[in-house]
Amino acid sequence: MSAEAAAGIEESVHDHGGMAEAGERRIGWAARSMPVLEAIGARFAQDRPLDGLRIAACLHVTAETAVVMGALKAGGAEIALAASNPLSTQDDVAAALSTYGIAVHARAGVDRDTYYRHIHQALDIAPNIVLDDGCDLVNILHTERVELLDEVVGGCEETTTGIIRLRQMAAENALRFPMVAVNDTRTKRMFDNRYGTGQSTLDGIMRATNLLLAGRTVVVAGFGFCGRGVAERAKGLGARVVVTEIDPVKALDAALQGYDVQPMGRAAEIGDVFVTVTGNRDVIRAEHLAVMKDGAVLANAGHFDVEIDVRALEEMAQTVHFGIRPNTDEYVLDNGRRLLLLAEGRLVNLSAAEGHPAAVMDMSFSAQALAVAWLAQEAAGLTPGVYDVPPEVDVQVARLKLGAAGIEIDALTSEQEDYLHSWRVGS
Amino acid sequence: MSAEAAAGIEESVHDHGGMAEAGERRIGWAARSMPVLEAIGARFAQDRPLDGLRIAACLHVTAETAVVMGALKAGGAEIALAASNPLSTQDDVAAALSTYGIAVHARAGVDRDTYYRHIHQALDIAPNIVLDDGCDLVNILHTERVELLDEVVGGCEETTTGIIRLRQMAAENALRFPMVAVNDTRTKRMFDNRYGTGQSTLDGIMRATNLLLAGRTVVVAGFGFCGRGVAERAKGLGARVVVTEIDPVKALDAALQGYDVQPMGRAAEIGDVFVTVTGNRDVIRAEHLAVMKDGAVLANAGHFDVEIDVRALEEMAQTVHFGIRPNTDEYVLDNGRRLLLLAEGRLVNLSAAEGHPAAVMDMSFSAQALAVAWLAQEAAGLTPGVYDVPPEVDVQVARLKLGAAGIEIDALTSEQEDYLHSWRVGS
Amino acid sequence: MSAEAAAGIEESVHDHGGMAEAGERRIGWAARSMPVLEAIGARFAQDRPLDGLRIAACLHVTAETAVVMGALKAGGAEIALAASNPLSTQDDVAAALSTYGIAVHARAGVDRDTYYRHIHQALDIAPNIVLDDGCDLVNILHTERVELLDEVVGGCEETTTGIIRLRQMAAENALRFPMVAVNDTRTKRMFDNRYGTGQSTLDGIMRATNLLLAGRTVVVAGFGFCGRGVAERAKGLGARVVVTEIDPVKALDAALQGYDVQPMGRAAEIGDVFVTVTGNRDVIRAEHLAVMKDGAVLANAGHFDVEIDVRALEEMAQTVHFGIRPNTDEYVLDNGRRLLLLAEGRLVNLSAAEGHPAAVMDMSFSAQALAVAWLAQEAAGLTPGVYDVPPEVDVQVARLKLGAAGIEIDALTSEQEDYLHSWRVGS
Amino acid sequence: MSAEAAAGIEESVHDHGGMAEAGERRIGWAARSMPVLEAIGARFAQDRPLDGLRIAACLHVTAETAVVMGALKAGGAEIALAASNPLSTQDDVAAALSTYGIAVHARAGVDRDTYYRHIHQALDIAPNIVLDDGCDLVNILHTERVELLDEVVGGCEETTTGIIRLRQMAAENALRFPMVAVNDTRTKRMFDNRYGTGQSTLDGIMRATNLLLAGRTVVVAGFGFCGRGVAERAKGLGARVVVTEIDPVKALDAALQGYDVQPMGRAAEIGDVFVTVTGNRDVIRAEHLAVMKDGAVLANAGHFDVEIDVRALEEMAQTVHFGIRPNTDEYVLDNGRRLLLLAEGRLVNLSAAEGHPAAVMDMSFSAQALAVAWLAQEAAGLTPGVYDVPPEVDVQVARLKLGAAGIEIDALTSEQEDYLHSWRVGS
Repeated sequence: MSAEAAAGIEESVHDHGGMAEAGERRIGWAARSMPVLEAIGARFAQDRPLDGLRIAACLHVTAETAVVMGALKAGGAEIALAASNPLSTQDDVAAALSTYGIAVHARAGVDRDTYYRHIHQALDIAPNIVLDDGCDLVNILHTERVELLDEVVGGCEETTTGIIRLRQMAAENALRFPMVAVNDTRTKRMFDNRYGTGQSTLDGIMRATNLLLAGRTVVVAGFGFCGRGVAERAKGLGARVVVTEIDPVKALDAALQGYDVQPMGRAAEIGDVFVTVTGNRDVIRAEHLAVMKDGAVLANAGHFDVEIDVRALEEMAQTVHFGIRPNTDEYVLDNGRRLLLLAEGRLVNLSAAEGHPAAVMDMSFSAQALAVAWLAQEAAGLTPGVYDVPPEVDVQVARLKLGAAGIEIDALTSEQEDYLHSWRVGS
Repeated sequence: MSAEAAAGIEESVHDHGGMAEAGERRIGWAARSMPVLEAIGARFAQDRPLDGLRIAACLHVTAETAVVMGALKAGGAEIALAASNPLSTQDDVAAALSTYGIAVHARAGVDRDTYYRHIHQALDIAPNIVLDDGCDLVNILHTERVELLDEVVGGCEETTTGIIRLRQMAAENALRFPMVAVNDTRTKRMFDNRYGTGQSTLDGIMRATNLLLAGRTVVVAGFGFCGRGVAERAKGLGARVVVTEIDPVKALDAALQGYDVQPMGRAAEIGDVFVTVTGNRDVIRAEHLAVMKDGAVLANAGHFDVEIDVRALEEMAQTVHFGIRPNTDEYVLDNGRRLLLLAEGRLVNLSAAEGHPAAVMDMSFSAQALAVAWLAQEAAGLTPGVYDVPPEVDVQVARLKLGAAGIEIDALTSEQEDYLHSWRVGS
Repeated sequence: MSAEAAAGIEESVHDHGGMAEAGERRIGWAARSMPVLEAIGARFAQDRPLDGLRIAACLHVTAETAVVMGALKAGGAEIALAASNPLSTQDDVAAALSTYGIAVHARAGVDRDTYYRHIHQALDIAPNIVLDDGCDLVNILHTERVELLDEVVGGCEETTTGIIRLRQMAAENALRFPMVAVNDTRTKRMFDNRYGTGQSTLDGIMRATNLLLAGRTVVVAGFGFCGRGVAERAKGLGARVVVTEIDPVKALDAALQGYDVQPMGRAAEIGDVFVTVTGNRDVIRAEHLAVMKDGAVLANAGHFDVEIDVRALEEMAQTVHFGIRPNTDEYVLDNGRRLLLLAEGRLVNLSAAEGHPAAVMDMSFSAQALAVAWLAQEAAGLTPGVYDVPPEVDVQVARLKLGAAGIEIDALTSEQEDYLHSWRVGS
Repeated sequence: MSAEAAAGIEESVHDHGGMAEAGERRIGWAARSMPVLEAIGARFAQDRPLDGLRIAACLHVTAETAVVMGALKAGGAEIALAASNPLSTQDDVAAALSTYGIAVHARAGVDRDTYYRHIHQALDIAPNIVLDDGCDLVNILHTERVELLDEVVGGCEETTTGIIRLRQMAAENALRFPMVAVNDTRTKRMFDNRYGTGQSTLDGIMRATNLLLAGRTVVVAGFGFCGRGVAERAKGLGARVVVTEIDPVKALDAALQGYDVQPMGRAAEIGDVFVTVTGNRDVIRAEHLAVMKDGAVLANAGHFDVEIDVRALEEMAQTVHFGIRPNTDEYVLDNGRRLLLLAEGRLVNLSAAEGHPAAVMDMSFSAQALAVAWLAQEAAGLTPGVYDVPPEVDVQVARLKLGAAGIEIDALTSEQEDYLHSWRVGS
């Protein structure tokens, strides 16, 4: 983290011993791959665009999140952070963040009640701006903490799943403030979803199973940006990839990219590894589990742990061997076949690997930091609803990223500018 | 073509001898790969949604265009067709179309004046609906044939280039009727631009040069849908691909896909084969030509022949050997280096190969046929401007295409439908 | 061709009019992509390693072959050339070669009898060295022209098919002189077979059919070097590739590379395009033709036209439409299904496209030229049998090729040389 | 492990508590992906082909090795095992093996002296057959334990590095018994080296660094089977791959596969991640380290830890931060640049990940088990030297593997058999 960004975290007082130190090392490592956010943090430290604002955030408590928290704090914000997923919290990072003066309400592996209590505790800050990752915090705000709604000027949502829920809320006129769909920026969808989820999902599967992927049949359920990324990486590791979809346009795209497109009913019979990444529930359910091969591996890379019907699996199992490998449970079915469930059906890339590499989080979190600054300035003029990130944010993030990677690109000549704006030129 | 679709062309009277027959064979071949359009043509023959409408079209006069003309005629339209590119006209197809009762104003290789005269002749039909491919016909209508504007209810545009010009016209309040951006449909951009332009461009380069692409450095200027397709196919043939861009987001995407991203100034020094596909002019100009390697190949896959500055090349050349290979001219520069210009800088996939394979045109032309029917019904209610194709057109086309390919996909269960519409479900 | 190489062809006297000129242009084009052979030809012109030797060659009469003929002639040889395939002869190249003082016995499209008569005519030169491509010339020499055997000191064979036949002859003690397996050099197998056959086969299929390959299922029969090349290019063009094999090791390799490996009986049911490249006969036979989909395309890229059982196809067909597209015949079967046979089942890359690009022939023909020079020097000491090309030939060819492409590589340091030669260094 | 294979390990007496249990679980997991070795073990248990033989093995002490040890023991052998690499030993597996009655001399992380002492201890068994992985055991046998040579009938070597050393010994007439080059089997080179090293190397780099590979420049030094595998997987994860080589043929192959081929001097300036996999020393040395970018990652996937000149790195470093991430040390150079060395320059796939997935070890260890059985039968008739594995071993292993994966392939018809054996059939 740059000196200026560090300004935001200077009030660190107590070191929680070795754990905070370990967290700091981890954050430092992530920060190296986040040059864009570092540059934004440095600017924020100078301009203080968030002075006096309170932020409640519900995000994965990871090293990369810590870097964006540092940038927002450098910009002047007071922050309370809860975890958006009970499994993804890195306790050492949480410890380090606490020493930076950020109120962290998160601990790895907590139960459902504690998870929700943590969100409530983060909300206790009475936020002006909310940052969400899956819409749980916004949901609670609109249902159980309505007394806080008046103070909120707006927020940001990180995930496809969350956006779907927000649009539904907006359609029902239930949404009470403007939310920026950070997920829908080009830099987020194209990069974070595709390259981040792609690599980290396969990384998680390899760490959990150490299976050779070359020659295996990997079934990817869902061919959105995330699914595309997972399919590409699986193919890049030598697997045969089968894609399942419900959208004919995406299905056709998958077929034209050379993937084998099948309904899940048939894919279930031929797959060695299954990855769900649809944003929907019960994508793999009893009827599919019933026909899978012995040794089939089940992993979820979608936001919520609802994509694989784990309850059905439990009911079908005669025996379960928990932890047969790290993050791998073996379900032995009636007919003797053994199915391997990774990370209890939760996000495999966060649970069995380390989530998105910092280099992609650099882009989505930079977009988020700039979106927060934009909200701080513009929220007053916005009605409740789901807003796109202004396109210049994307361009700015991409330009900073290219610069950090030492990549130069062309600029339009003035003749070219003119040409693009003139419709009178003939063929 | 199905019997019903053929109904639209039954008034064929005179065979123009062998040429029309050859054209008919070619059209028949294309129709085999166009099952979606065939199905739509069959429906049009029954419902006659275009009865009484006059259509002026300015399109590449190819076998695939002939199939969509057949479908529109089957739907009841009277049609006059001019060529949208002097080089792409297939004379045998033109001959065959004439025998179907469609007024064709096109001949391969005509000069600039004749090209524009042909467009005027097509406009003489006094169209209700116009179909354009590059915006030349619409441009002439708005500048030289304004007397016809009152009869026009709307139109469709096929290309990215044309859409850019139309949006500019709309921004200047110069556009006088609604135009549907057929180019912007997902089925067109994702499939026709990416897979069609991708394969046919490389096909054209191979036919023109018979060069081994494995191990060659191919520079692709522009990383839109078309550029992506060209880059993928070049990579798939074993080339090292260098991408040039002016948009930081697209440039970053190219870099993350593993392409070498460079400004053209540097790419010019290392490329063996150059393909422009930007929609802009002078992408390769004197300063770039001056530093290219001996034997470098220059090809354009963008709509207009302005992307490579051919005039600069002519001025720099001491000698030109025309037709050193089919569609290949050799320019010998002052310093003895030889540059090879394919197809005079015009669309290499149409000039040196056969344009988009029928299988992709099936999708974009099906979208166009459905868009024409939609315009026929809805145009009265639309103000001048550029309109998106209704999304259900995409879904319908994709669904028909999957069906024709024998690919089945999943449908949402009712629980899944509910889940997608409910924002109250927690994590 | 360099000035020195041209020395071998200086006695050109009569121009056979435009055809020879066209051939010369074609040869000149090929020579540009053959810098290695050009360098070798230049050296041969100086050293005259083949002075006084008579060569009978049975090769594809193409522009690339013309360049190697030039190099051998520059080296001092007297040459008679017959075509190794009735379909691949480029008549203009044959005309040009005649003007160089090389006796050419070849014409495009001749019948079987003329094909064999041409081989006999080439043998009439009473060769000291023979160059073969499929083993037909060597076969005739051992069966019908045994009186010439005494003069023969050795020869070279270009193809996998030919090597199989030669090894069988050697095993039966029937081979009467040493043959160098040019086909088995690393430069030939790795480059010519893989990259040359790969690209040109797909090129031939595209020229013949203009089918979109993205999303199509391409069945590749045989996963040797050629089959691998075809599979890679098909995949690179977006196809799903199914591989059939009889060798378990190759089949496993294909599976681990992510290909779908199936027996032909099942592949026949799902393929859109079939390419045979096995070196064996009847790879696609009646039982497979009977279950293929309507519109399936059949192409052969193996040396002989025996891999697809064309006779069976003819017997099963009710009607045949010859030339429905260039090099494409349509066989309509009893059940109404239409199968499309490309190039009559002969080498699709030579018949429907232009054969291997010159850049790969540069390597295999350079290896051949160096092998001929090696034979001229060493044959006296060799007993009859099949010999590998000396490994330094490969290294020399590859080094020249890298140099021509401007690619630099590392050299071993003396410490590294020592390390490789010392087995006493511990871990 | 099957019941029969388990027969070989039934004399397990003492359980070393939880560690042995953990090892057994790990071995059980590996055995699931090793169906071929399981089948061979079952056969061995019946036929007892190794009855009365003593084997000294120096191999990576991993779960997969344990499975092959089980098969050999099932075949009747008495076995002593030392570790071939101080870093790769899985202590729990060692504990489990001890309970099976196999003498294990190995512990993770021992120093150099202990490493060699362990090899001596394994040799104390006075072996009839030796199994080596890098040639250290064979080396010691020929230098320090010559008194044991008379009892040895032959051995097997697993690695390319070891084979190089053995061939050198044979060339100097120093090798005293036949050694089978298990490394040179097609199943080993094609599968284990390419797919096993490929995946596990990238897996190790991701676990150690969590870097996003998409868009990064990965330099692969060496393009043998292992290097090819590493390059393919890096490319498959979205990296731009630069290859360095000293062999022109391999370099050319890399270039034709689309890789950027450069000498290390230039690659050093542009690489983000470096992987050495050459079998040689000092591939990355001071002159290269001096020009690398800040943050460059250095990993070795070659057998010995000599490929990166770690001593030079230590000398150039002002500070070293050990363990900045697991298996990652940071060297800060004079000029402030930070280089990250993974696994101390030792095998990154074994140290930072789990080595080759069991599915590939299944093939190479099956080949080894069959080679040991072959040696047991044939060694008497063999003179000292390096021998290839009999080709039928490859075919047998591949056929069993295909069967286990449910993949069927074609068989030759009798007409096809005849065709392949007849050289008299014309074109």
